[in-house]
Amino acid sequence: MSSCAYSLTEAAEHVREGRITSAELVQDCLAQVDELEPAVQAWAFLDREHALMQARALDLHRAQGKALGPLHGVPVGIKDIFDTSDYPTELGSPLWAGRTPRRDAAAVARLRAAGAVIMGKTVTTEYAYFHPGKTRNPHDPERTPGGSSSGSAAAVAAHMVPGAIGTQTNGSVIRPAAFCGVVGFKPTHGLIPRTGALLLSRTLDHVGTFGKTVEDVALLAEILAGYDEEDPDTRPMARPPFAAVAASEPPLPPRFAFVRSPVWDDYAEPATREAFGELVEALGEHVTQVDLGESFGAAVDWHKKIMEVEMAYNLHRDYTKGGEQLSEPLRKLIERGRGVSAVDYLAAVGGISPLNEGIGSIFDEYDAFITPAAPGEAPRGLSATGNPIFCTLWTYLGTPAVTLPLMQSEAGLPLGVQLVGRRHNDARLLRSARWLVKTLAKGRRRGSRKGKSS
Amino acid sequence: MSSCAYSLTEAAEHVREGRITSAELVQDCLAQVDELEPAVQAWAFLDREHALMQARALDLHRAQGKALGPLHGVPVGIKDIFDTSDYPTELGSPLWAGRTPRRDAAAVARLRAAGAVIMGKTVTTEYAYFHPGKTRNPHDPERTPGGSSSGSAAAVAAHMVPGAIGTQTNGSVIRPAAFCGVVGFKPTHGLIPRTGALLLSRTLDHVGTFGKTVEDVALLAEILAGYDEEDPDTRPMARPPFAAVAASEPPLPPRFAFVRSPVWDDYAEPATREAFGELVEALGEHVTQVDLGESFGAAVDWHKKIMEVEMAYNLHRDYTKGGEQLSEPLRKLIERGRGVSAVDYLAAVGGISPLNEGIGSIFDEYDAFITPAAPGEAPRGLSATGNPIFCTLWTYLGTPAVTLPLMQSEAGLPLGVQLVGRRHNDARLLRSARWLVKTLAKGRRRGSRKGKSS
Repeated sequence: MSSCAYSLTEAAEHVREGRITSAELVQDCLAQVDELEPAVQAWAFLDREHALMQARALDLHRAQGKALGPLHGVPVGIKDIFDTSDYPTELGSPLWAGRTPRRDAAAVARLRAAGAVIMGKTVTTEYAYFHPGKTRNPHDPERTPGGSSSGSAAAVAAHMVPGAIGTQTNGSVIRPAAFCGVVGFKPTHGLIPRTGALLLSRTLDHVGTFGKTVEDVALLAEILAGYDEEDPDTRPMARPPFAAVAASEPPLPPRFAFVRSPVWDDYAEPATREAFGELVEALGEHVTQVDLGESFGAAVDWHKKIMEVEMAYNLHRDYTKGGEQLSEPLRKLIERGRGVSAVDYLAAVGGISPLNEGIGSIFDEYDAFITPAAPGEAPRGLSATGNPIFCTLWTYLGTPAVTLPLMQSEAGLPLGVQLVGRRHNDARLLRSARWLVKTLAKGRRRGSRKGKSS
Repeated sequence: MSSCAYSLTEAAEHVREGRITSAELVQDCLAQVDELEPAVQAWAFLDREHALMQARALDLHRAQGKALGPLHGVPVGIKDIFDTSDYPTELGSPLWAGRTPRRDAAAVARLRAAGAVIMGKTVTTEYAYFHPGKTRNPHDPERTPGGSSSGSAAAVAAHMVPGAIGTQTNGSVIRPAAFCGVVGFKPTHGLIPRTGALLLSRTLDHVGTFGKTVEDVALLAEILAGYDEEDPDTRPMARPPFAAVAASEPPLPPRFAFVRSPVWDDYAEPATREAFGELVEALGEHVTQVDLGESFGAAVDWHKKIMEVEMAYNLHRDYTKGGEQLSEPLRKLIERGRGVSAVDYLAAVGGISPLNEGIGSIFDEYDAFITPAAPGEAPRGLSATGNPIFCTLWTYLGTPAVTLPLMQSEAGLPLGVQLVGRRHNDARLLRSARWLVKTLAKGRRRGSRKGKSS
């Protein structure tokens, strides 16, 4: 197979062991871009020569016997709201056309330091909010890839690049990963610094990772995690061994809580209801349905208020100067945010800690929650990016969440299974996620022998 | 002399060395209370037997040869907004009359763990805001002691207790200390946990300490400092050696910046102008006048907005249920806070970091700022507690500040000299403060030989 189909973890290993050069790997990925980009449109900026030049330099570095980083020679896609010193960063907005930052965002700098090839910039919705970019779903070009990290999810799904980074302020990592059928991971709030990425909401913005396997998103998150003095929500910490823990066996089979969450009744589509019914059945004794209390129903409104207010504050200049160059949904959001009172905003922020305490007792009994990543499959049409509502509560709480492409709709489109962990328990969540993938794969192999292949 | 006149540091040493028992020390303090409390009215709650019982238990502890804490047997006054498990905590409000918390505030628990006798609860203004309590200035009963930590400052000034704790959200430690002629210290924001103390404003609330010397306030702050998981603004840290550093000689004489601050022109009274003129002259080469840029002028408004909003949020229930039992100034403040928009609030909070960066370059050259603690001497009248305006900027910035009773007005009333340090440079600030006290005392001794005694 072409090396473009490698997982990120495989690609890193093959380059490290000398079974393939970085230049060959990047060439294979570029060939895939040549073939699929006309349909998928995942990239805002991609300079073939610049990508290859980085790869050759890294091959030379290796040939000289120098120390290799954990991503040595592996190409990665960067959502176009992270500043890059070598590519433009346009935030998905005509207002910022031609913007060329001088400094890499902290996440980009950490990827470079780990030896990654910065392949190019992936398409984002306008300001990582609502208004879509040009990207289409690789599984069906008439459908949205999800957003706002549309290009990162689509590029990984289309094997144009084995890994990518994005951001989530509501459902912008988990939802596109689910719609495109890749693994997406949003670690605990504050784990990965957001310095040099577009600031929408300090309270809600998360950096997330995309890959083909749980190990992939774990490896990327491990490289990106850690204190940055310019991001006040990061904390000094030892490097988390996400990749090693994700690859390890749990001492006991994990216990899952099937948490439909307060939005299930209004939003879960039939495909989701059916698929999760089967999933819960397949997991048998490993899963228990748990209902959150009524107090969690307020979280969606609180999230909305925080997002509106903080975006209105942070995008104040763009709003004032940008006029019609800002989409109407964005202008409306900012206007709503300007109308919120400070005490209502503080009440919305003030709900985060108590609700996290509220789910603490459930996490004492269960390793992870299982819940949908989205209402259903990627919707038809390119004028919107689908509903983030199944991500909202977990973004508000700042809990780690990972989506796994474990199921399909009748149309053959991916459906994501979202697992949610306790804050700062990212490694355990990833380990539980990998256990789930392996266990279901075994079940399917057994099932297919009985003629019940999915 | 009666042991009630000891500094906190002396009292701790005398008890530790066995030159006086805790019971004798507390008895001497109680005798002073008997004599002066009718005029000063510093205490909200003081139970003689309960104080003596603690002292006797601590004496027994010592007699048994057990390990002694750094404040073993030393009585301390607690502002009546800190929860105490043995005394009521009424927050200076009739709404909370008879309130008896079951748990000590973190600061109180740390004092007990250090061996302190919790002498009693000192008078606070209503909710540590504007409306005065019963306390009078020990130097002149017709004048305010300042507020909101009125009783803590007055009790230390009147030798009723060698040390006390209070809080500052605007000028509530520095101002009463200055008006009463004691040393007051407001450490860096987040240094001392506020858990179990009345929450007015997470952004602005500080715990502070009162004593007779710089060493006293340093010792108290050292005992109180450090991480508390219930105060999100505290950070894990090693115990800061404030007392030792404060007692040490600086390697070089400190350099002071005389910062009149943007409020000088409108608020500094003639007594202050004259006294600071003389002080700057006396310090000669050790001080340079430095003017802050115009951007600091906004800080007073930003502080006001944050305080109004956060108090409106935190006192929402009291406002809703309390009605006429809340003073009119407090109700008005809450109503103003309810009218502030969230984006204006975020803009006010957003100014804190840039302004701290703005003074960073001055702190690269100077060890501390010298600035007034208040517009002038304690004003006449008991219907208000004086103007906190000379504290506002430093509370907003979260910088450490200490006031020293180094000067007097013509009426013989104390005038405070406020020293301000860089955030998290509390120890250096205290060392510079002690150097200033010693140096001016030497100068005065020389001056008095020439017949120029102050």
